[in-house]
Amino acid sequence: MTPPVVRSVAVVGGGLVGGSIAAAARDAGVPDVRITDHDASVRDRARARSWGHLVHDDLASTVRGAEVVFLAVPTHAVADVAVVVAPLLPDDGILTDAASLKGDLTLDVESRLRVSNSRPAVGRFLGGHPMAGSERNGPEAAHAQLFVAATWVLTPTAATDDDVLPRLSALLRSFGARVVALPPVRHDELVAVVSHLPQVAASALAAIAADAMDATGDAVLSVAGGGFRDTTRIAASDPALWEPILRGNRTAVLEVLRAYVGQLQRLERAVEEGRFDEVHAVLERGSIARRRLVPKADVDETVELVVPLDDQPGQLADAMTALGEAAVNVEDVAMRHTVEGARRGVLLITVAAGVGAMAEQVLRDAGLAPVRGAPPGEDPS
Amino acid sequence: MTPPVVRSVAVVGGGLVGGSIAAAARDAGVPDVRITDHDASVRDRARARSWGHLVHDDLASTVRGAEVVFLAVPTHAVADVAVVVAPLLPDDGILTDAASLKGDLTLDVESRLRVSNSRPAVGRFLGGHPMAGSERNGPEAAHAQLFVAATWVLTPTAATDDDVLPRLSALLRSFGARVVALPPVRHDELVAVVSHLPQVAASALAAIAADAMDATGDAVLSVAGGGFRDTTRIAASDPALWEPILRGNRTAVLEVLRAYVGQLQRLERAVEEGRFDEVHAVLERGSIARRRLVPKADVDETVELVVPLDDQPGQLADAMTALGEAAVNVEDVAMRHTVEGARRGVLLITVAAGVGAMAEQVLRDAGLAPVRGAPPGEDPS
Repeated sequence: MTPPVVRSVAVVGGGLVGGSIAAAARDAGVPDVRITDHDASVRDRARARSWGHLVHDDLASTVRGAEVVFLAVPTHAVADVAVVVAPLLPDDGILTDAASLKGDLTLDVESRLRVSNSRPAVGRFLGGHPMAGSERNGPEAAHAQLFVAATWVLTPTAATDDDVLPRLSALLRSFGARVVALPPVRHDELVAVVSHLPQVAASALAAIAADAMDATGDAVLSVAGGGFRDTTRIAASDPALWEPILRGNRTAVLEVLRAYVGQLQRLERAVEEGRFDEVHAVLERGSIARRRLVPKADVDETVELVVPLDDQPGQLADAMTALGEAAVNVEDVAMRHTVEGARRGVLLITVAAGVGAMAEQVLRDAGLAPVRGAPPGEDPS
Repeated sequence: MTPPVVRSVAVVGGGLVGGSIAAAARDAGVPDVRITDHDASVRDRARARSWGHLVHDDLASTVRGAEVVFLAVPTHAVADVAVVVAPLLPDDGILTDAASLKGDLTLDVESRLRVSNSRPAVGRFLGGHPMAGSERNGPEAAHAQLFVAATWVLTPTAATDDDVLPRLSALLRSFGARVVALPPVRHDELVAVVSHLPQVAASALAAIAADAMDATGDAVLSVAGGGFRDTTRIAASDPALWEPILRGNRTAVLEVLRAYVGQLQRLERAVEEGRFDEVHAVLERGSIARRRLVPKADVDETVELVVPLDDQPGQLADAMTALGEAAVNVEDVAMRHTVEGARRGVLLITVAAGVGAMAEQVLRDAGLAPVRGAPPGEDPS
């Protein structure tokens, strides 16, 4: 194992994110990981799960002398805890948080650190937003791998000391995270576009489908294919989690929501007036954008193999074992079941185009019946 | 094998859908399956792939005396071909099509069959829409399993003879399809809600993200999580396929697009005026609707296991083999890669809640490190 990038980490808050940070730091080889929570039952769980090396009952013992302190507390508590913790840090200590909005909060924390300490602790604070986990899973779901392959945004400002970003980034990379640095307000604008607007759009779409269902009955279910399922998946999220996020990022959310409504109104008028060249142009702009934004979606470089299954445990294993033994790397894998019960379905296996023919042969040799092509229920139907 | 539900099937058109229908009918045990296409190269392919038992060069030889004739031709050609084919059917023959819009087309076909035949052939026509396959995959992707687990809508009218729906339904079920009967106009209204509106919404969303990317650079990519990927996936569709669909269903599309814009405008005003109770109500309506519309999404009945992978071929196989050998049924499986290269990632395995603990143990015994929880990059981040 490579040497740990820091010697000591302290985590305040033992929820999903806090617990996972402590577990990830410990797994990454940090020799001194401490955690606390104001709730005794959470501390008990942290002890039972060995999230850190030491679970302290009080804040001061937890953070005193720690090289990096993570504040994994509710957004409204971050600034209050920050001013208590800052004086207990060593001179080169780093203080960070995990709140999902950064603009107003960073201003608030920095201004309170400026006035509350004789030492200029403001330069040691660097806001963070680990884009991982779903609160619906609760603290029970905390685990050391939560941040693997996840983006962790850090939001330095003019006040941040120069050494803080590279040191904290190195630690987060040792958790498996991809670190991105953005100004705090820019972070909030971007999550409005790629997270908050999609949530609102999906919720509204599901609500429209519900209206149709009220009017026409369950037939809506039968004709809803993969496009509908994908587009509305996040609509199932808990409103109690999203309302405060939208409220907290109100300015940026309003701006992108206006832009979205404007785009849709132009489409509405184009459909109404029969200007389908304009409809085509928006579809094309969206298509190019999606392929550019999510390069993995590029279908030219991969092939999809459709393998009919009868939902018996052994078949999925047969397929994967055969590919594994042949050293064929599976880029993506998904299952699609019949909706009426699950006795039949298909396994969709995506492999690089270069090994498509080989993968097909391997699966056939394993007694399966792969075919190249599109999954049932996909667009455009 | 159970006896075939019909003795003879003829397919006009050797594209993705037509080729797949012939292959599916043959696989389902129909003893006499014929296919034709006006294009000689398509007929050659049909012969090479053994899509039917006989590939005819002309329409009349193909359909004469066939018990069920599928018209898998472009929408604009359906009525013209129908009036040629109808007189060649036996008295109890059935004529159906595969066009993705049914309202105007059904009226057109029925009125032309009424006037063009001495015999009342109109009662033998029953419109259909197999909701499977993606034209982007082209005719090369045709295969007998295309309709497994897919919905096939049939659109009977007052003119349809009583025996037609049950007989055609039985044949389609033997292809693995789920058959749903709807009035033609209702079909078009429902696909506007669950297919056409999601496409427009996703395209507009991707276009908004492209604007943000133009303004702020590639950082948009980094913060785009699973919610964005899901919501905009179908935006990558080919505009050339979608424009005619939206044009053909203009009336219904306009109606649902108006309803969607209205819903979003109410949300916009609520955010602007700080009425977040109203925002909460729409989120909640969407959440309830999504869980009701797509029951498989119900998270209460399943658990998700997150298994870190390093993208080596063997690991996926290890996981699936272990579960298969332990007779644990995998409800769903998906992979999530890091975006920067693909050396690390996680495998997401969904199993019934009742076997969650067992699956976890099985995976651990196989040398893997499963944890329960949410995938990185998921909501609400």
